[in-house]
Amino acid sequence: MTRSNELVLLRHGESTWNLENRFSGWTDVPLTVTGEDEAISAGLLMAEEGLGFDIVHTSLLRRAINTANLALDRMDLHWLPVKRSWRLNERHYGGLQGLNKKETAALHGAEQVFRWRRSYAVPPPVLERDDPRHPRFDRRYQDVAEDELPASECLADVVGRAVPYWNAGIVPDLSAGRRVLVVAHGNSIRALLKYLKRIGDEEITRLNIPTGIPLVVELDDELEYVADRYLGDPEVAAAAAAAVAAQAG
Amino acid sequence: MTRSNELVLLRHGESTWNLENRFSGWTDVPLTVTGEDEAISAGLLMAEEGLGFDIVHTSLLRRAINTANLALDRMDLHWLPVKRSWRLNERHYGGLQGLNKKETAALHGAEQVFRWRRSYAVPPPVLERDDPRHPRFDRRYQDVAEDELPASECLADVVGRAVPYWNAGIVPDLSAGRRVLVVAHGNSIRALLKYLKRIGDEEITRLNIPTGIPLVVELDDELEYVADRYLGDPEVAAAAAAAVAAQAG
Repeated sequence: MTRSNELVLLRHGESTWNLENRFSGWTDVPLTVTGEDEAISAGLLMAEEGLGFDIVHTSLLRRAINTANLALDRMDLHWLPVKRSWRLNERHYGGLQGLNKKETAALHGAEQVFRWRRSYAVPPPVLERDDPRHPRFDRRYQDVAEDELPASECLADVVGRAVPYWNAGIVPDLSAGRRVLVVAHGNSIRALLKYLKRIGDEEITRLNIPTGIPLVVELDDELEYVADRYLGDPEVAAAAAAAVAAQAG
Repeated sequence: MTRSNELVLLRHGESTWNLENRFSGWTDVPLTVTGEDEAISAGLLMAEEGLGFDIVHTSLLRRAINTANLALDRMDLHWLPVKRSWRLNERHYGGLQGLNKKETAALHGAEQVFRWRRSYAVPPPVLERDDPRHPRFDRRYQDVAEDELPASECLADVVGRAVPYWNAGIVPDLSAGRRVLVVAHGNSIRALLKYLKRIGDEEITRLNIPTGIPLVVELDDELEYVADRYLGDPEVAAAAAAAVAAQAG
């Protein structure tokens, strides 16, 4: 049985740019057919586990939204109330968005790209304010103050904007006894786990979140972290996390 | 250009029970592949028209929710805020739910079935309180007071529960300048149109809402009805409405 203070975090399934090994960030790429299957499998895993939810939170990006839709439809929970926030979006990859990770390594050097990808506090090159990829041109972010809208983010920046959403958006649901599903991205889930599990700045850069495998997070009555576990075969989750870690950098 | 006080009403695409000619009501049947195509076409029509929305309202039934998801994804509006309410559900068909319309006519007489289907104020046989199909057993309705939960509805009943949602759920969005998409059902859309257009009790029973064709409703500054039109080829909309009217009864 799920306890009312349990929480499930789910990273979206494979996207077209995961497949092409491109930096996606806030680029709104769709799921691949494999990614859709991962979403459906995630729904089946959660249903088999007997998990119920009272509300779902997603980012504003299609790969997370459609993962949520597919998983919840499979759980017969398509009717759940929905909240969405840019604060659950993937890390903004700035000027790297759209570039192939291997090509970027050839261009900037593997070491520099590794630093951008894996250091906690080094943001990638910033998008120019007039770059058409800048989020201020995207209507979905029109209500976000411009000084809050990122044009490039390091993981520390993601922590800085995701944790306020945890406190203002998710905690009220958990406190009211609602069971919460969060469908988001590798780096926004990392950011939440860093905060909940008090993971260090170095260690968090080595934590890899597999796509499409629900992570059940147990919290105590004060909503403090107690334990977490991936649903399904632990070896599958470990292999999926290792595959994420091994993506060319 | 859409004006900020425009509203679009969309009936879900074909469901498996539309196809099998069964009374669906609150039974949560899925879309057929044709229904999914209708939803995508509706999204394309709205995108071609240059319609933008700021929020979507749906019922709690899968055929409306998935129609909304498919249409909005096609419009690049998958990220919209979502509100859902049981008050936008299809008419509750009571004990007729699940029955084939022709079989029901053979059983109860065509005239009686016609009365259940088409009269404004005659509800179909009521579901017993202990019938497993009763909505009180369905978790999605757990927050609805039991005396509000229908076990059978005539169209007058649908008007009685949909209009309060218009006033409390949709009007505040329109008043705030938000452009609203409502994805719902033949009878809940009828109920809204009866109220907005002040259609008589007799006349409304002859109004047929085609599946998957967006109806743009123009409202004035006081949110009074001005005009409406179906998107796309008017002959297609008229033929689709006629097909609905001709469904075996």
